[in-house]
Amino acid sequence: MNNKIGDQTIIFKNEPKIISHYSVVGEKEGNGNFKNYYHYILKDDLFGEKSFEHAERKMLEFAISNSIKGANLKIADIDLLIGGDLLNQIISASFTARHFDRPFLGVYGACSTMAESLAIGATFVDGKYLKNVVCATGTHFSTAERQYRFPLELGNQRPPTSQWTVTGAGSSVLSLNGCGHKIKMATLGKVTDYGIKDVNNMGAAMAPAAMSTLISHFKDTKTTPDDYDLILTGDLGKLGSEILMDLMEHNGYKFGKNYNDCGQMIYNNNQKTFQGGSGCGCSAAVLNSFVLKKMDEGVFKRVLFAATGALLSTLSSQQGDTIPGICHAVVIEKDDKKEN
Amino acid sequence: MNNKIGDQTIIFKNEPKIISHYSVVGEKEGNGNFKNYYHYILKDDLFGEKSFEHAERKMLEFAISNSIKGANLKIADIDLLIGGDLLNQIISASFTARHFDRPFLGVYGACSTMAESLAIGATFVDGKYLKNVVCATGTHFSTAERQYRFPLELGNQRPPTSQWTVTGAGSSVLSLNGCGHKIKMATLGKVTDYGIKDVNNMGAAMAPAAMSTLISHFKDTKTTPDDYDLILTGDLGKLGSEILMDLMEHNGYKFGKNYNDCGQMIYNNNQKTFQGGSGCGCSAAVLNSFVLKKMDEGVFKRVLFAATGALLSTLSSQQGDTIPGICHAVVIEKDDKKEN
Repeated sequence: MNNKIGDQTIIFKNEPKIISHYSVVGEKEGNGNFKNYYHYILKDDLFGEKSFEHAERKMLEFAISNSIKGANLKIADIDLLIGGDLLNQIISASFTARHFDRPFLGVYGACSTMAESLAIGATFVDGKYLKNVVCATGTHFSTAERQYRFPLELGNQRPPTSQWTVTGAGSSVLSLNGCGHKIKMATLGKVTDYGIKDVNNMGAAMAPAAMSTLISHFKDTKTTPDDYDLILTGDLGKLGSEILMDLMEHNGYKFGKNYNDCGQMIYNNNQKTFQGGSGCGCSAAVLNSFVLKKMDEGVFKRVLFAATGALLSTLSSQQGDTIPGICHAVVIEKDDKKEN
Repeated sequence: MNNKIGDQTIIFKNEPKIISHYSVVGEKEGNGNFKNYYHYILKDDLFGEKSFEHAERKMLEFAISNSIKGANLKIADIDLLIGGDLLNQIISASFTARHFDRPFLGVYGACSTMAESLAIGATFVDGKYLKNVVCATGTHFSTAERQYRFPLELGNQRPPTSQWTVTGAGSSVLSLNGCGHKIKMATLGKVTDYGIKDVNNMGAAMAPAAMSTLISHFKDTKTTPDDYDLILTGDLGKLGSEILMDLMEHNGYKFGKNYNDCGQMIYNNNQKTFQGGSGCGCSAAVLNSFVLKKMDEGVFKRVLFAATGALLSTLSSQQGDTIPGICHAVVIEKDDKKEN
């Protein structure tokens, strides 16, 4: 194979670029650590819609539309939309795709969906199958809460290991034409299950998947953690990140200050989210705001974006199953021509 | 773009082959029209498991394992599994992927998932990113029925426009090495919504999506329906197929005897399934048994496999939304070296 190295990593020799990106988040996220980096902050989490589910779709549509505009492209220039979300049958992504009248591939990797979309999208672009591909995903606290946990009206107490589903969406436009940071490679993750059953401790369930993909990535590419300015996991949260650091250290990989986690970073300590953020929208919003902006500024030059997902459903947990996790990683390198 | 023609169609110049395939179905399907074509027919729809959901996973695992064996490959030779299913958060595919310890990409296109998987898988293989890719999907009547409709114990009456979710799974191994029928191109579908709200009439909801993709395919490739020995839609069922034929005729495309539909074909008239079969497992099982076998025999030399999906959820219907549809198509050509 020309474009594969090691066991799980593919190389994008033509260097697809993220030629445009857009992030939209809810009010709570807008008061968090990255308030100065988001493109748009909702004043009302219903976004003028009649249900939170419709608001989730509208955020995704808004992010996609604005990322296309930001690339100076028309909708007709887009060859493919790739996306998914947390709602049953990924209705947010599918219903959103109606509005664009362009080909659509629905994907599902729980909170790893942004990285999965980028890996697939980069393949279509790098292989010159398609010119411009949009990768987008999002979540909404209120839709996830009532689908996975309790009715919102119940105001149920949250356990200390829990995370807070991010209200937000992010969209990236990939192309070989134009300026933007480059997607250099992708490490496709394996489903990993260490037997965790606690649905309020997703970080612990996902950390082994992150470890699996990161170790494979370092081995495949013959790199070390020090080769990256930023190693960013999806949304393990504070506890999950600590578990990951322990697991990595046991395997001989010591993470320094260049490691962080989207879930851990997105809210500030006064926002009572316990372990931090989660949801497809978490890593999508953080990547498409703070991370790419800091790459513009030259603060990060080489980023390993490793989004993680917990692949459970309410039914699998009701039937006593454990929680499998997955993690897909993409390497993004600074475009030296792009400076702010 | 080197590998795109027209608006929605990509070309696989290296001709990825389906080097192995496997189908497993339930007892009812085993009494249907293709009983002599399936690789394995369950004697018990629980497949020895404690729940129908676990049986669905086991079928998928069984189909994947046997397709890998059929290709004379080991699990370690597989670079990627691609799959999805109808259950919330595609737990069947994700949980199944745990057992293989190979990279996994989860996709969701409702009953179009087999074609979506083949289109993505063929891209990875054709572009020489990966060597051997397994595409698999499945469904189970009893899991779909209780997730989407009523408890099984209720024995609810079925409306005449309804379809019957197929208990079955199919798996295809794609590679550039080895013998097998060739995936020549894929037409990636748009989400199409004609405003149908009747959840018991999926054929009507999906027919416009099939029309959209088929017309785009014929335009992109400058072919006509007569250029195919078989044009096979996913699972529009009897009524949906009639609607599609009407819609196509209105657009100047007359379908002859070379058109059929997996849902319409899979059961016989005595099986009381009204409009026929549905579910990801329907087109997956029909493709990976009857269709590829008939290609081996030379009965079909050029097949346009256009699987269709209805992208609703119970929640979207409860909120009064219409039912969007999608259809992805792949062209499969007979490998002249392969004869039975």
